Amino acid sequence: MNGYNVAVVGATGAVGRTMLRILEEQSFPVKRILPLASSRSEGQTVEFMGCTVRVEEAKPSSFEGVDIALFSAGKDVSLTLSPEAVKRGAVVIDNSNAFRMDPDVPLVVPEVNPQDLHKHRGIIANPNCSTIQMVVVLKPIHDRARVKRVVVSTYQAVSGTGLEAIEELKLQSRQVLEGQKPEPSVYPHQIAFNLLPHIDVFDDTGYTMEEWKMIRETKKIMGDENIAVTATTVRVPVLNCHSESVNIETYEKVTPEEARRILAGAPGVVVMDDPANKVYPMPAYLSGKNEVFVGRIREDFTVPCGLNLWIVADNLRKGAAYNAVQIAEYLVKNNLV
Amino acid sequence: MNGYNVAVVGATGAVGRTMLRILEEQSFPVKRILPLASSRSEGQTVEFMGCTVRVEEAKPSSFEGVDIALFSAGKDVSLTLSPEAVKRGAVVIDNSNAFRMDPDVPLVVPEVNPQDLHKHRGIIANPNCSTIQMVVVLKPIHDRARVKRVVVSTYQAVSGTGLEAIEELKLQSRQVLEGQKPEPSVYPHQIAFNLLPHIDVFDDTGYTMEEWKMIRETKKIMGDENIAVTATTVRVPVLNCHSESVNIETYEKVTPEEARRILAGAPGVVVMDDPANKVYPMPAYLSGKNEVFVGRIREDFTVPCGLNLWIVADNLRKGAAYNAVQIAEYLVKNNLV
Repeated sequence: MNGYNVAVVGATGAVGRTMLRILEEQSFPVKRILPLASSRSEGQTVEFMGCTVRVEEAKPSSFEGVDIALFSAGKDVSLTLSPEAVKRGAVVIDNSNAFRMDPDVPLVVPEVNPQDLHKHRGIIANPNCSTIQMVVVLKPIHDRARVKRVVVSTYQAVSGTGLEAIEELKLQSRQVLEGQKPEPSVYPHQIAFNLLPHIDVFDDTGYTMEEWKMIRETKKIMGDENIAVTATTVRVPVLNCHSESVNIETYEKVTPEEARRILAGAPGVVVMDDPANKVYPMPAYLSGKNEVFVGRIREDFTVPCGLNLWIVADNLRKGAAYNAVQIAEYLVKNNLV
Repeated sequence: MNGYNVAVVGATGAVGRTMLRILEEQSFPVKRILPLASSRSEGQTVEFMGCTVRVEEAKPSSFEGVDIALFSAGKDVSLTLSPEAVKRGAVVIDNSNAFRMDPDVPLVVPEVNPQDLHKHRGIIANPNCSTIQMVVVLKPIHDRARVKRVVVSTYQAVSGTGLEAIEELKLQSRQVLEGQKPEPSVYPHQIAFNLLPHIDVFDDTGYTMEEWKMIRETKKIMGDENIAVTATTVRVPVLNCHSESVNIETYEKVTPEEARRILAGAPGVVVMDDPANKVYPMPAYLSGKNEVFVGRIREDFTVPCGLNLWIVADNLRKGAAYNAVQIAEYLVKNNLV
């Protein structure tokens, strides 16, 4: 065995670049790396394992001989090119929203439902960033006490929108500090020193697609249609790492002490919860980490069995690229590719 | 009637300065304005009605002849000087946490419980900023459908901490943009491009005092000990205006349409809820407004009678100075001073 041919579709984007870094960090057995992107990015180069690699335009023929294709180039690209990649024998791990709710496509967070990978038919969906970090924490509590209802409010970083949103936040912040009026471009309104209760598009219920993703994907990943989730998703002027205020009700009582103990032993979770010493997860300090961080673990005194949690994770890593590479690692380990 | 002698204690602070502006804007019948502060600020001047007025050191004798004293100089100053002001015949409207939960002190939001002002014994407490903007919106819904439980997550601006926190956010933002490492001073951690799930001090339950204020003050202002509130309060890198993601359960069903109608007719509330046209309240655009803005009004499908709301208000105005001046106006109108 001398490794796999791995394509990264959207290799010049925020998630694609992070995928390349994580493949390196994890010493993933890459025989050949194929950075792909739209024709606009053709001719750009990316670095991989000390080599400079030219970015090629993603097209059906690009996937000849590819074993694993990591897609993060938006829904339309995934819809068009994933079937072409599968047709040519690749397994696709898709970071877009294109296939997540397709009953034939596993939607996987390896700490939560790796078993679903055994049923894949060529395409595996990587969940929404804000959903991933929440379910990693919910799962061990669900196993112990069964989660009944979740009320989540998010505080989402601009990196989730892409590199151009990071530049927009920086540019607008400079403009506001210099007394100038920022001109929104990526976002519909100023993001610097502001909050936008608007991520993805609205539907007739008044919810955004981002909110529906958290509601629907949580049930599918956790394998329990009875987990009731309501969500309010908000963009905040933070560069990277999503944060979430999560209120949960369970069927059985879990004390904060027990929750801390369960979570401290859970895969992929770091408990960071010592408020007396001002220790709690904060986005500006957790960029570059692969784990999900949880703190502010408290009893919710308004219900018989309730907890409040504060969850932070690097949305480009655990929320996207790292989760995708974890899936690839599981596939390799279990001969599913 | 030729007006009242009005003292503003803490006149050089963020709330004190706003109190002076609002007394002007509201054409409050001021006979004489007395800007008071600690000895550190003595000799500074403030502007009032086109005049430059010297700030005096606040001491017991300062309150001779004062009719109304607006306090916003912290709990210790309120504990020491409010009784002295009352002894000398002034009515105190106190913005600190010193007397809020004292059963003999009315805790008032004029849109919610003005009747409580008739029982005052010299001191009236102005509620916590994040509580005020929430109860203004909860009250009309409570009157219609009785609020059972509230799960609130806040997104609080740095102006709530004071002028020095505004400067810290600006300075640190410049430093981060220039690639420097910010040195926290006002806050325990970097606030620029970061979130601090920590406002005021923690107690043994893991809650902060800010969270307890929202839980306890809501019951007292609404006059209903059965309203169950749980809260997670978070400082965000926004200069001014607090935002809140509020999930409520009611005993009777209220549709989003009805909630919009009720709130549109409620005093002090502006419904800003047209997501299809990207209209929802945002803190950077609502600084300087006295009303409470509500949008993202949606049904919570996880309970029989639930709503999600997004509430934004200028925390220095409706959350502090404007509410205090509204109380003073009610006192004057009802001969309670």
